[in-house]
This record gives sequence, structure tokens and C-alpha cells, in this order.
Amino acid sequence: MNRNLFARRLAGMSGSVIREILKLTQQPDMISFAGGLPSPDSFPREELTEIVTEIIAQKGSSVLQYGTTEGYQPLREFIADWVKERGIEADPSEVLIISGSQQGLDLMGKAFIDPGDNVLVEDPTYLAALQIFTAYEANFTSIPTDNLGPIPAKIKEVAQGNKINKLIYLIPTFQNPTGITMPVERRQEVVSVAEELGLVLMEDDPYGELRYSGEPVPALKSFDTKGSVVYLGSFSKIISPGLRVGYIIGNQEIIRKLTIGKQTVDLHTSNLSQAIVYEYCSRGLLPKHLAKIRAQYKEKRDLMLKLLEENFPPEVTWTKPEGGLFLWMELPQGISTTELLKEAIKEKVAFIPGDSFFPHGGGSNTIRLNFSNATKNDLEQGITRMAKVTKQFLSRQK
Amino acid sequence: MNRNLFARRLAGMSGSVIREILKLTQQPDMISFAGGLPSPDSFPREELTEIVTEIIAQKGSSVLQYGTTEGYQPLREFIADWVKERGIEADPSEVLIISGSQQGLDLMGKAFIDPGDNVLVEDPTYLAALQIFTAYEANFTSIPTDNLGPIPAKIKEVAQGNKINKLIYLIPTFQNPTGITMPVERRQEVVSVAEELGLVLMEDDPYGELRYSGEPVPALKSFDTKGSVVYLGSFSKIISPGLRVGYIIGNQEIIRKLTIGKQTVDLHTSNLSQAIVYEYCSRGLLPKHLAKIRAQYKEKRDLMLKLLEENFPPEVTWTKPEGGLFLWMELPQGISTTELLKEAIKEKVAFIPGDSFFPHGGGSNTIRLNFSNATKNDLEQGITRMAKVTKQFLSRQK
Repeated sequence: MNRNLFARRLAGMSGSVIREILKLTQQPDMISFAGGLPSPDSFPREELTEIVTEIIAQKGSSVLQYGTTEGYQPLREFIADWVKERGIEADPSEVLIISGSQQGLDLMGKAFIDPGDNVLVEDPTYLAALQIFTAYEANFTSIPTDNLGPIPAKIKEVAQGNKINKLIYLIPTFQNPTGITMPVERRQEVVSVAEELGLVLMEDDPYGELRYSGEPVPALKSFDTKGSVVYLGSFSKIISPGLRVGYIIGNQEIIRKLTIGKQTVDLHTSNLSQAIVYEYCSRGLLPKHLAKIRAQYKEKRDLMLKLLEENFPPEVTWTKPEGGLFLWMELPQGISTTELLKEAIKEKVAFIPGDSFFPHGGGSNTIRLNFSNATKNDLEQGITRMAKVTKQFLSRQK
Repeated sequence: MNRNLFARRLAGMSGSVIREILKLTQQPDMISFAGGLPSPDSFPREELTEIVTEIIAQKGSSVLQYGTTEGYQPLREFIADWVKERGIEADPSEVLIISGSQQGLDLMGKAFIDPGDNVLVEDPTYLAALQIFTAYEANFTSIPTDNLGPIPAKIKEVAQGNKINKLIYLIPTFQNPTGITMPVERRQEVVSVAEELGLVLMEDDPYGELRYSGEPVPALKSFDTKGSVVYLGSFSKIISPGLRVGYIIGNQEIIRKLTIGKQTVDLHTSNLSQAIVYEYCSRGLLPKHLAKIRAQYKEKRDLMLKLLEENFPPEVTWTKPEGGLFLWMELPQGISTTELLKEAIKEKVAFIPGDSFFPHGGGSNTIRLNFSNATKNDLEQGITRMAKVTKQFLSRQK
């Protein structure tokens, strides 16, 4: 190209920090708590081999052909039924199958955000959501949070100064990156404030099924009285991320708009992936599998918490999540975890510095740690290494 | 929602006309020439069953896990090598795997189009491309065409009045909807004009491998001297559309930008779909399969041309494509093929009225006919029915 033809919306966007760090972590001997990857031994390979063979042999002519944008109808029906557990009442026509729940964020951006519109977000929040909405030239408004999640009274306050508020984006259950879960009363309040402000509330719930302790809490969507809560779910963390299957639940007007958007972006989600997920679920394999991975991840979470307790100095604190994949660590103010990461990588251990999760800066003393992907042996070695590096780093900063 | 929160970009977009017509054609006994679907008996089910079983059993832990945005490396390498046949020299790092080539259009829009920017298109052109770029608030400039495709001298002329020209979008081989193929001299001229104007030229080539007569022509990309031609390919028409695997080839700067865009839209394409396509290709199954479907579609094309010749009145004309899936029919000026479609549907035969393929109106007397999907028996019955309805319709208009 002999001149710069690129659009404004991606200018200055240099790719996900996390994915760049993940590349570093592919060095041999590196122990990584950086990604948000499920454990590779959690994948139900045997059952999937059997299922996929049957699907192509028996349903090949439809699965290999073009499909409808809305998704594989039996899967939409299964999902509408399944989410009742989370307090969500939905007709199958209110379920849109998407290529991973990340696509749902992109479609919501496409459907709702004009340049300059405001999206209200937790502070910190899911990094990729910030990037996706930035590609639609959104502005972000940070909602102050406490240890129960976003503070309802503050939502109104921060929304007031904005010209056009469109969306409020929340991860209420085992939040990414903090691991925090919003309790039920807070959920009711948050939905009610969002409704009062006339906003569309996006509830991103990729980890909801991964609870290891405490009591399940109904989805924000279950408190929706105006059809303005949109729920995003995923099979990535409970069956396989490599298949790229997620779903959005919303009122028919919104689903219709998102379907038009999806027609333009990829026509439809891989039929084979959809059929695999459906067969796996409809054969009743999911509950047993969920029990297995919950037990696996609970052990890992407990082990990481125990190791942190045993090895880290008292000036470092962290959250104790009841589920999900992550916990959130805070070092003393003034400490740069980006600098710490450089030291850690020399010692062959990696994590994500927390600052990228903040829409308006801050959090340079924070860290996101993943406990689902590493083996127990790597957890032990990795946390020991990380504690050693951190103690040295802290003593040099004094 | 208690107010309209939707973004401007999808306002007035009501979903693909084609997909709405396709819904109608799902009635029993309907013979449809409307879609662009491969023939269901073209799918290599047996080989795919074997391949998919092996993949999950042997490569499950990587295929079921998250993958890189750029795509499955062995598949990128295969493609870089394979496109040499079309005169394209590309490093594997210049190949981005996408979720169907339609996603490539969306990513190009995201990377290049600011609201109000101009996209130069053939008139008529692929309907979905118009919708995708409309979602990025593009303006369209029609390039006058003759029976060899867009006229190079006219490209400069129509581009002149525009404020910002960004992209020129062409389907040079077995064009959708017309079936026309641009000859080699014209290709050289078109690339050279695009380079002179400093535009990025998008070469959309989903049908290139489906040639039934005449001599192969090198890709526009093969004449690229400035790294400003982007080539879009797809496995949808030659292996399976349901898997959603396509690719973009471009210079590294552009591929980097598209990769950042793809990170935000779906992280990566289904690993299982990518691995299936790769295994199918790397086992050398593609050439034999291509020979089979080319023979199949050639028969159908020839049959449709013969039936049209035998049954349609002389005032109706059509193109004689050397490949692809479609031919293009013109009825006398003043005839509305949308009205004709209503009559045809009563007689259980369907097609796409051509007007939706024109960015600025016109073409209301045109029709796109697909010859790949129907069985030979349905081709015979369908064209006979259509000819009868058309003759009646024409006689009533006189």
C-alpha cells in the first residue's frame, strides 16, 4: 500500500496483551498462570470421538451443508431448557447460537454502539471486551466496585455526565479478572438501576457452571422485567473452546438485530461444532462431566490458595473465588507487576499484569492468576518460583 | 427496551433477501435455483468420517483447546503452497485462516472502512458484500461492466468524484451473480488501475476451483506489484460450507491488522474444522474430489443451458459461465422479476430476482439461477415450470 488506508477504529490497537504474553509462555519449562485455558485433560475426548463419527456418518448431508444463521434448532431448544436452572425463562427463538461467546460481544457492539456512545463497565473488567467495544469507537465509564462487585448507587452517578449511555457490561459470576461473584440482592439492585437508566445490560457468564463452593446465585437475566438484559453463555469452559460454540439469550427484537449482524460476519457457526455440542448435551453427558471438571478445578483452586498462603508475604493479598478460572492478587501500591513479570519470566513462571483490565489505567500493582490450566505439580513449582521472585522484587523496592 | 438504543449502522438493514427467499423455498415440492448451495451429494462423507475420528482421538488435546488467531499452522502452509497454481506467491505468514470467506469481507470492512468511505464494486455484485460494507457505513461506487467484467478505463472515471476511495471489491472468476470471468489482459489492467489509484483491491474467489470448460486464468493477486491485492479463498464450495473455513492472503501489514480484528470477533476459527480441512487436503484427497464435483456440476450446468435453450422464448437471454454455481438471466426491460417470482412460487419453483445485487437499484428484469444444488430431475422439472410461468407472465405484460 502506498498510503495509510486503515480505518480509525483499529488505529492504535496492537493486539491482545494477553495473547502476546501467551506467546512468550510457549517456551519450554515455562509455567504459566497467564491464560484462561481449561485443563487439556478436561476434554471428553472418548465421548466426542464417538459422537463426531456418528454425526458425519448419519447427518453428514445437513451438517456439512450451509445452515441457518440463528443456529441448530435442537441446540437452541436444549439451551432454552437448560438455562432454567439459572432462573432464565427463554423461548428457543430468543436463543442465538454464536461462534464462541466472544462473538456475542462483537455482535452487541455492532448492533448497539455508535462512535462515542458510552459503555459502563466494571473496573477492572474483561480485557477483550474493552478491545471489542473500542473497535466500535465506544467510550468507557468505570463503575466503582467493592468486594461484592459493582456498587448499584454508583452506577447512576457515573452515568449522569455522559451524553449517550447504551450498554452496561458485567461479568457477575466468578468475574474475569477478579473472581468475585455478585450476591443476589446486589443483582436485583443492579438490574433495577440498569432498567431505570434505560440501558441494555449485558451479562457475560462463561464460568457460571464452574462453582466449587458456596451457593448458586440466579442470573441477572432472571431479574429482567423489561427485556433489556442480554445473557451470554459458552461451551468453551465446560466442553471445549476449540469448537467455538456459545450463545446469546435476549428478547426477540434484540436477537433479530444480532442475527442480521451475524449474517454479515460469518453466516452461521460451524454446523459440526453445533451438532457435537448438541449431541453431547442431549445424551445427558454434561452433568457427569461438569461434576468431574468441578472436582478437578476445585482441587487446583484449593491448592493455589494454600500455596499462596504458605509462600507469599503478608503485604500481598488475593481474592478467594467460589468458582471460575481466576483469582486476583494485589501487591503494595507503587509496585509494577509488569516489571515483576520480566523477572518472573527469567525464572520461568508467567502471569498477566492486572493493568490491562482497567479501562482508564490504574491497577499496575495487580495480577490475574489462572488456576485451571496448570498441573498440580506445576502449580506447586510455579507458585513457589513466583513467591521467591516477588519477595526479592519487593525487598529491592523498599 | 424502553427506547431505541440500536446503532445507526444496522438501521434499515432487514436481513438478507436471499436468506428470506430461501426460507420460502423450504416448502415441500419446491424446486429452488435460489441459493448458492453445493450439491449435498458432493460432500466427501466417508473420508471425513475417518479423518474426524482420527483427529479427535489423536490430536484431541490441541484441537479441542484454544488456538491461535492466525490459524492452524499446517493449514496455512498448505494454502501458501496450493495457491501457487493460481499464480500467487505467498508466505504462510501472509495467510490468515477465517471462519468462511464471508468473515474476510467483514474483517476487511472493520480494518479499512470509516463511515462515508467509498468501496468500488461491480454492478451487479455479491449481495452480502454490499450488506457487510453497509454495516461499516460505506458508500458504493458502481463500476460499469461489459461481458468481460468491469471496464478498466471506467474505474478511474467513477473514482474521481469521491472524497475517500478505500477498496475495490471484485469477483473476477465465475462472478456472483453473473457467472462472468475476467480474461487475463483485463486482469492486468484492473490491478494496474487499482494500484495507480492507491486502492486496496479485494479479490473474492470462492468458485475459482470450479471450472468446467475454457482455460484457467491466473488470480488478480498474481499481478500485484505493491502488496495491495487481498485474495479471499474458501473451502465451502469444494469440501463443505458447514465447517466454515476460508482464508485471506495479503501482505503482512494487512494480515496483522486483520488478525487484530479477528481476535476481537471470534478469537479463532474452529480448530476441529481447520484440522479436518487440513487432513483432507494433506492426504491428497482434494484433486480427485475436485475432479468429481467438477464433472457433476459441469453436467448440471450443461443441462441447465440446454433446458433454457429448449424452453425459453428468444427475448430472454442468459450468460454461459465456464464455471462456478450461477448463471445470469435477462428478461426484457420493464419486466419485474420480483413479480415473476411470486407467480413462480405458486408453481413451486424459485430463483433470486437480480435487483438486490445492484448497489444503486436497477436490474429489476434480471435473475440469478443456481445450477449446482438441484438434482438433474429437479433441473428438468424446475426449468420447464419456470419457462411456462415466464412465458405466461411475458404474454400478460404485452
